[in-house]
Amino acid sequence: MISSVSNFKVKYFKRLREKKFILEEGKYIVESEHLVIEAYKADVLECVITSLEDYFLGDVPRVVVSDAVLKSISNLSSVPKVMGVVRLNVSNEIKGNKLVLLDNVQDPGNVGTIIRCACAFNVSSVIFSPNSVSLYNDKMVRSSEGTIFSVNVVRMDLRDAIRVIKSRGIKVYYADMFGENNLDDMSVSDYALVLGSEGQGISDYVKEISDEGINIPMKSSCESLNVSVTGGIIMYKFR
Amino acid sequence: MISSVSNFKVKYFKRLREKKFILEEGKYIVESEHLVIEAYKADVLECVITSLEDYFLGDVPRVVVSDAVLKSISNLSSVPKVMGVVRLNVSNEIKGNKLVLLDNVQDPGNVGTIIRCACAFNVSSVIFSPNSVSLYNDKMVRSSEGTIFSVNVVRMDLRDAIRVIKSRGIKVYYADMFGENNLDDMSVSDYALVLGSEGQGISDYVKEISDEGINIPMKSSCESLNVSVTGGIIMYKFR
Repeated sequence: MISSVSNFKVKYFKRLREKKFILEEGKYIVESEHLVIEAYKADVLECVITSLEDYFLGDVPRVVVSDAVLKSISNLSSVPKVMGVVRLNVSNEIKGNKLVLLDNVQDPGNVGTIIRCACAFNVSSVIFSPNSVSLYNDKMVRSSEGTIFSVNVVRMDLRDAIRVIKSRGIKVYYADMFGENNLDDMSVSDYALVLGSEGQGISDYVKEISDEGINIPMKSSCESLNVSVTGGIIMYKFR
Repeated sequence: MISSVSNFKVKYFKRLREKKFILEEGKYIVESEHLVIEAYKADVLECVITSLEDYFLGDVPRVVVSDAVLKSISNLSSVPKVMGVVRLNVSNEIKGNKLVLLDNVQDPGNVGTIIRCACAFNVSSVIFSPNSVSLYNDKMVRSSEGTIFSVNVVRMDLRDAIRVIKSRGIKVYYADMFGENNLDDMSVSDYALVLGSEGQGISDYVKEISDEGINIPMKSSCESLNVSVTGGIIMYKFR
């Protein structure tokens, strides 16, 4: 059991909290047994870090450490007994014909929830614009309940992404309360759906290069829905 | 302009951060101009607290204070220039025939998002179980984007609520991944929908006294959706 916070392995784990090092190594830390198990199932788990001497997960390498060491690595106020090192699972390729694009969506809870919907409703790729939340954001990963490990995730300028998608004959929609299509009247199986940030909505350039807007009919006195609910309703309808 | 944090009005505002005092006074503090305006529109705004000397909202009483005083009242790291005192808008009566019940739902972000959906999709009352998040929780109010001010909100034991609802001939459903009804096949206009906590799902006693469960069809390898997305999809379908 490692009990020194200055042990070289512990130092390495702590550096995996830094953006630059995460990108260099292509790995990041996840906290909680639930996320570790999901990473294991998705085959992206590199190693288990735990203070439980009898905790094993298949033949995944493990590092047993003291609770104090776990605390030194953790970002949470309630430190879990099990953490993991996970491979950053980022793809260069937009796969499939049910696609979700995130246009400057920064709230990690919303993005995690969108990823969870994507997994539930057969979305084949989620494309993050460069100004959307990072792919290894702690809170996003937690909100995704680990579904981020198995969804095909791409980080790409949306101009490039939309060009590629259109060239495949897939229509690009964006969610907007003033969109010209009422969701009730739509029946679609192949699609790309752009979701914007709550504060700013869809970027003008994205509206210009997309095909059509979709509105979810709602009471007029209510301004809008949460972006993850908007995404969830449309993905459910088009699944 | 009040610049002393020990001024009696300022002390009063600060006490409106304490649960006991909030319940005694039936008032609480909201932060941000957006929420203040929503409270004004919903006619629950008692007074404006601001450091902007030329900020007026109709004839609502206002208290002009220094930024330091606002900071002493605020719970946020980025202190807004406009806050308000809002009447706690809690009802004893379950109104209407589209109802949502919260069974031990504690996450404030999820509850706020559910309230926002309720507003958008014509839900007439939202019933909070006693162990759900409080009706004046800061983060819940923010996540609701102020829709909490206009929705009819009730806090009640769910046994009592379900008895009342059933006596009116309204069917009580609960969202559950093993529920016997596939949402795709349902067409309902009057309903009560119970949503449970993400960790624990619907309580056993609620399942016993409710009529039927609803499942949202999804990919089997994905465990579940976020509770606010679950609620949003069902409310959209039944609106």
